Amino acid sequence: MKRFAKYFCVSLVLVLLGCDSTSPQPASTKAADEAAVRQTDDNWSKAAQSKKVDDWMAFYADDAIVLPPNEKKVDNKEGIRKEIGTLLAAPGLSIHWAPINVEVARSGDLAYTQGSYELTSNDAHGKPTTDHGKTVEIWKKQSDGNWKCIVDMWSSDLPAPTV
Amino acid sequence: MKRFAKYFCVSLVLVLLGCDSTSPQPASTKAADEAAVRQTDDNWSKAAQSKKVDDWMAFYADDAIVLPPNEKKVDNKEGIRKEIGTLLAAPGLSIHWAPINVEVARSGDLAYTQGSYELTSNDAHGKPTTDHGKTVEIWKKQSDGNWKCIVDMWSSDLPAPTV
Repeated sequence: MKRFAKYFCVSLVLVLLGCDSTSPQPASTKAADEAAVRQTDDNWSKAAQSKKVDDWMAFYADDAIVLPPNEKKVDNKEGIRKEIGTLLAAPGLSIHWAPINVEVARSGDLAYTQGSYELTSNDAHGKPTTDHGKTVEIWKKQSDGNWKCIVDMWSSDLPAPTV
Repeated sequence: MKRFAKYFCVSLVLVLLGCDSTSPQPASTKAADEAAVRQTDDNWSKAAQSKKVDDWMAFYADDAIVLPPNEKKVDNKEGIRKEIGTLLAAPGLSIHWAPINVEVARSGDLAYTQGSYELTSNDAHGKPTTDHGKTVEIWKKQSDGNWKCIVDMWSSDLPAPTV
């Protein structure tokens, strides 16, 4: 009986040590998640070089919303395809972006990136003009472990045109 | 001995049931967090009615960044105070905003709100003009349990002025 009680206590301690549900996730998970989000955002900017709408759209979740400056919120896939299609069809287009800050929730399900973009396209006279600005993207980890963008917003650093 | 073995097994099962570290947080935590973020954003819009910079600033974390349209990123408290001070000093100002979507990470440390704003102020001729648009705010739970905004971005729904 005494020996059994000893086994019981040792087992209980081992079980309790093994399942501390209040301990935070290991730091490596957060770092790995942040690296994955950063890499995905970089891949997205590279994918945009094909200037194909599908290559761009692959980075949005099904319920993504896009918030372009001086336009209403676009909250449906068809509207987003149209928005991105117009952007990618701009004559002389060159577009790049990159994340600056990347932060992932401890639970590894939600993240954001705050970055910058540069966009060159030809004006009405065929002269290249360059815009640059800032981005906020919100990311959600999908059931397959990949990160997809659920909110995409950007705005120019340049002053608005004056009438 | 047999009775002790039975107690051991029952205890072990209860302990294992009580500490399943892989199970998600209870739904009520997520709902409560989302309600808290929504309430904080509503309180912020109400606080802005005083038109005092300090009342507005109280909702930003110390390391908050502000991303106004057609301006560079503002990533320091002094710059943000100046930005908000200029906004709140606009003649005839009326400003309101509200969250539409609110989403909190399972771990309850990171959240975002996507909402809309309406802003009326007098133009150069003293005539009230109204702008409306969309917002993205990213929120972080502070060590005291309160939510503070760490990224604040907005842009107009109205077309940019044409030269």
